[in-house]
Amino acid sequence: MKVNNKNYRTIWVNPDNPLEVMAIDQRYLPHEFYVRELKHPDDFVHAISDMLVRGAPLIGITAAYGLYSALLHANGHNLEEKLSDAYDKLIASRPTASNLKWALEIQMHAIKEGKNLGEKVKIALENADRMADEDVKACKQIGKHGLEIIEAISQKKNGEPVNILTHCNAGWLATVDYGTATAPIYMAHDKGIPVHVWVDETRPRNQGAGLTAWELDRHGVPHTVIVDNAGGHLMQRGMVDLCIVGTDRTLANGDVCNKIGTYLKALAAFDNKVPFYVALPSSTIDWETKEAADIPIEERSEHEVKHVQGFDGNKIVSVLVTPSHSKAANYAFDVTPARLVTGLITERGICKPDRKSLSLMFFNQ
Amino acid sequence: MKVNNKNYRTIWVNPDNPLEVMAIDQRYLPHEFYVRELKHPDDFVHAISDMLVRGAPLIGITAAYGLYSALLHANGHNLEEKLSDAYDKLIASRPTASNLKWALEIQMHAIKEGKNLGEKVKIALENADRMADEDVKACKQIGKHGLEIIEAISQKKNGEPVNILTHCNAGWLATVDYGTATAPIYMAHDKGIPVHVWVDETRPRNQGAGLTAWELDRHGVPHTVIVDNAGGHLMQRGMVDLCIVGTDRTLANGDVCNKIGTYLKALAAFDNKVPFYVALPSSTIDWETKEAADIPIEERSEHEVKHVQGFDGNKIVSVLVTPSHSKAANYAFDVTPARLVTGLITERGICKPDRKSLSLMFFNQ
Repeated sequence: MKVNNKNYRTIWVNPDNPLEVMAIDQRYLPHEFYVRELKHPDDFVHAISDMLVRGAPLIGITAAYGLYSALLHANGHNLEEKLSDAYDKLIASRPTASNLKWALEIQMHAIKEGKNLGEKVKIALENADRMADEDVKACKQIGKHGLEIIEAISQKKNGEPVNILTHCNAGWLATVDYGTATAPIYMAHDKGIPVHVWVDETRPRNQGAGLTAWELDRHGVPHTVIVDNAGGHLMQRGMVDLCIVGTDRTLANGDVCNKIGTYLKALAAFDNKVPFYVALPSSTIDWETKEAADIPIEERSEHEVKHVQGFDGNKIVSVLVTPSHSKAANYAFDVTPARLVTGLITERGICKPDRKSLSLMFFNQ
Repeated sequence: MKVNNKNYRTIWVNPDNPLEVMAIDQRYLPHEFYVRELKHPDDFVHAISDMLVRGAPLIGITAAYGLYSALLHANGHNLEEKLSDAYDKLIASRPTASNLKWALEIQMHAIKEGKNLGEKVKIALENADRMADEDVKACKQIGKHGLEIIEAISQKKNGEPVNILTHCNAGWLATVDYGTATAPIYMAHDKGIPVHVWVDETRPRNQGAGLTAWELDRHGVPHTVIVDNAGGHLMQRGMVDLCIVGTDRTLANGDVCNKIGTYLKALAAFDNKVPFYVALPSSTIDWETKEAADIPIEERSEHEVKHVQGFDGNKIVSVLVTPSHSKAANYAFDVTPARLVTGLITERGICKPDRKSLSLMFFNQ
């Protein structure tokens, strides 16, 4: 998508130097925009764990490039060791997103095919590039399917803007391009369908206020930032036509694990008969885990809850918002039960959030 | 309650100089604790409008002392003018605070009984003091009734702490002392019943992270600050035994208007069978308004959503958290339908949130 009239992806190989992978640093947005060079396998680990990059699809692609980087730093003697070291560090960098494991497995499998280090490097690069392109393609398909939902609502509203609420950032910054939850929104906007987005701030890290609002602003999509507390009231007063969120992991039974607070918005949508859709590439489907209670919920530092990062007029600072010695808890995700989800918007089409519908969609059985 | 081992109310007349009213300045908590002298009628107006004091009960008491101050600055010639000028300014200081009008009417009525300025001054002071004492008494009664709920849960938990979630600040800082939602908590803690409080941050103004956490910290009550997004997840995982919140206005049909986001927590409590109680002095019951849709919801400045106030290590600053030109909406309250409320904890006792139960409780009919 566009940043200051230039098209960007979130991650790409430096066309002038294929030894370097470039990524947008998302930690200082919306205030400061930086592109970083990732040169060493540890740079990729830190990029994920420090949330320079985030969002399930983008985490997966970054990890795939991380293995490529590990090969670049290996030689004939330490190849296996370097690779498994990078694999272990990458898979431990964020626990909840299922794309990390998915991408690493695919990449490891591909690398095995290379007969020597040179071949392995070539395969790893091509495979990571292919995965990035496929992510873009999946997001475009999600956009196409989701657009139909927006168009149907728009027709009923006679030209009034369709009000869409989203939580966290499932935008192009969470993927390689277009986004998952935002893809239908960008597509509708670009097609001239009037849309307006309610952007949940999404404490503690404010990915809504910082990233989603920034994305929409740069692309010219009308939007209003709200605190995470406000969505229920808006739905009660008829000010939301549709919710679309992303997901870090969706179980085959249709339960959706996403950014903390998603469950609360799903409850409010259900209570007010507002359609609640989850947009996802199939790489985020976890076909194995049986129960929501078995999903590991990442607990992050209490620092993120006790502090807020923002711009003080001169620079980006982090300010304390609690008593200095109060404790804080920081659960990063919650699970929205399938019963609260209207439908899943996937690259193959829209389906009900249940095992049968998902199996039919992806295995034709 | 205690601050640094000294007992405080939020507002009191200076015992050494009855011409001065003292109040805790809540604007810089939890970082800086100041007590201000209110000497002129305009000081009281600014104390309310600048949110040096806040919370429906405390706003009412502050306004009552404001009229006392107006009389202190009047003489035989300008008495009526001074009084009506103060009344007009005070009632406009927070247009939606219902206790403001309630307290001003009571005080004006009492002042009329004075036959001369001297008598009026005496009556105004005594009446404001009495209203403050009655607020404390009502909170203590709420505490006593709510304590029974906590004790019953504690007995089932065999000495494990009772986990109580609260939203915003319905603590002693919102009243003269003890608080409404916090009164049962302080009483349980002081009685040796193990309690632990999940403190909702409560964006945009962070009255949970800033005020409730500070109160609990100073009084030694175990607590953990969470973002507003987290409560649903905690309830799903069985980590909340009880919710208690305050209210700015409760309708006779049991619908509860309170700080934005209360509705979302009530939905989650209902979905997870967690008891959800609302603590309130009867002065906050609105016997007249018929429907929740008729309650005016205060819309505040978008500045509060786009910025967060905190301590940068040296001083208190306000930082921008959104793109500078993104719009933001700031609805201050929402309405929790009576169907989601387990019970109302009043100074008279606990009752169901419906017209019949409230009428029986307060009118014995």
